Amino acid sequence: MSRELVSHRDGHVYEFSPEMEPIHEAADGESLTIETIDSLNGAIQADADLLDAIPEEVNAATGPIAVEGASPGDVLAVEIEDVRVTEEVGRVLTAPGFGLLRDDPDIEHPATRITRVDAESDRDGETEKEGNGSIDFEGIDVPIDPVIGTIGVATAGETISTLTPDDHGGNLDTTDMTAGTTAYFPVFQEGAMLAMGDSKAAMADGEMCGTGAEIGTEIDVTLSVIEDPDVPLDRPLVDTGDAVKTVASAETMERAVELANRDVVRLLAHEHGFSRTEAYLFSSLVGGLEISQVVDPQVTARNAVPSEYLSVPY
Amino acid sequence: MSRELVSHRDGHVYEFSPEMEPIHEAADGESLTIETIDSLNGAIQADADLLDAIPEEVNAATGPIAVEGASPGDVLAVEIEDVRVTEEVGRVLTAPGFGLLRDDPDIEHPATRITRVDAESDRDGETEKEGNGSIDFEGIDVPIDPVIGTIGVATAGETISTLTPDDHGGNLDTTDMTAGTTAYFPVFQEGAMLAMGDSKAAMADGEMCGTGAEIGTEIDVTLSVIEDPDVPLDRPLVDTGDAVKTVASAETMERAVELANRDVVRLLAHEHGFSRTEAYLFSSLVGGLEISQVVDPQVTARNAVPSEYLSVPY
Repeated sequence: MSRELVSHRDGHVYEFSPEMEPIHEAADGESLTIETIDSLNGAIQADADLLDAIPEEVNAATGPIAVEGASPGDVLAVEIEDVRVTEEVGRVLTAPGFGLLRDDPDIEHPATRITRVDAESDRDGETEKEGNGSIDFEGIDVPIDPVIGTIGVATAGETISTLTPDDHGGNLDTTDMTAGTTAYFPVFQEGAMLAMGDSKAAMADGEMCGTGAEIGTEIDVTLSVIEDPDVPLDRPLVDTGDAVKTVASAETMERAVELANRDVVRLLAHEHGFSRTEAYLFSSLVGGLEISQVVDPQVTARNAVPSEYLSVPY
Repeated sequence: MSRELVSHRDGHVYEFSPEMEPIHEAADGESLTIETIDSLNGAIQADADLLDAIPEEVNAATGPIAVEGASPGDVLAVEIEDVRVTEEVGRVLTAPGFGLLRDDPDIEHPATRITRVDAESDRDGETEKEGNGSIDFEGIDVPIDPVIGTIGVATAGETISTLTPDDHGGNLDTTDMTAGTTAYFPVFQEGAMLAMGDSKAAMADGEMCGTGAEIGTEIDVTLSVIEDPDVPLDRPLVDTGDAVKTVASAETMERAVELANRDVVRLLAHEHGFSRTEAYLFSSLVGGLEISQVVDPQVTARNAVPSEYLSVPY
């Protein structure tokens, strides 16, 4: 299949807003390869390169891509087919005032460690974790398991930095945003205006120090529009193949998990004909709450339901 | 192996405190079977049985069990070999003022659903999930995957209800507290004074509605004392075989994940000779933060590190 390449060199954004100018217009059902630069635009290439502060422009998101026929109230499906790292190095780092343990006096802020991609790695684009090779952290091999950190669409009203996640997606820093997942976003504006970047070669749930192993990537996606969805979608949803997960961002983790659980209750009620009460009780038995990240200006949580109990209604 | 049975009928507690009177004295290395009653003492037997409020006495914890030689500063290892449900029914329910969506006007508080154990279930005590049979929720089969909701030891100073988790353990509502896991607790008092109860036949991470499928169980454990541990233990730790996870409880999820991450940083630094900075950076690459529960008077989180990168230092 021949895919058009859309690169950060063609255009990228540092904020999601209601009015975004597309750099590419995709047909409904089109497959693309999207090239992304690392979240710090190549500024960190050695352990001695330190980040004194989070730059004003961070998490360059390649795009936006307008998708034909996407209108407010629709749902945009982004099938993530492959994520390939395109650099020999990733970087994991701290910066002053940033990260879960930012107030720990025994942890250096700033600090950088380069995570070199193992030259022996098999990087032939297999989606199996084992086929992706590994990075090196201080002599320890860590399998490359790429994550798209920032992915989202034009917002309903606000202008939101690519550092912040919200109902439009954005800096979700969610490990499920990887090959094999289909991600669903609410469409707030004509064309949806998808943009993505800020990939990591590996990232822990939580992204505690504020980064994963930040790295450039090529991402294969297929974009589809679901018109007039049966169940309204207020914020992102992912289908990993094993589980369907609602994804919610808010100022506190308590609020994020509440939103994620509300969205699951709605989906379970729709799928099984449950009352909201029954859907809520059932949600307390299987799968459950997960943490995406706790370090961005809003935090992000998921509510996962195993695929045998919940399918995506689109 | 002949195991002595310690039953809730022999004694149980509704609070963990510094001064607890043992109902059984176990030798270091002793294997026991511990019988627990459901968290609501059998009060809920049908959908029509509603819980108008959380009872003052809830989560009866069988014990305490004094372990020979356990002294303050030591670590108590609890190897969980099997958890068998001992009732034909579990119950999942809401109660007014309790649960993640307690303020949702479209969800009934109180509400109860009985989750009947499938009579065809294979309940021969296999630790494999498939061998445990299933429960029925409104016509949907849910595999029995038991969880010990409340498990802990005598506290350092405070008296803490079995409804609340803290550094001594208590109402951790952590899905990893199941067969195949070894749980480690700090010893704050002579004999450690282990008690456990509040089992569920199944529970989602988060325990959103405030309960799992509450049920009586028999739990096979082996208890061992680690004297003068190399790394001090401030709060519970679990080894599931696949991952080592710190377990932390606090008033907010933000504080709980910070404590869980601090504990992981200490363990990673010890294992790999990392600086605290390096251990923190590494923690942001693999495994990650997990939610245990968000509904008790303190919430509980974990930081999981895959076993290939972290072993228990005891």
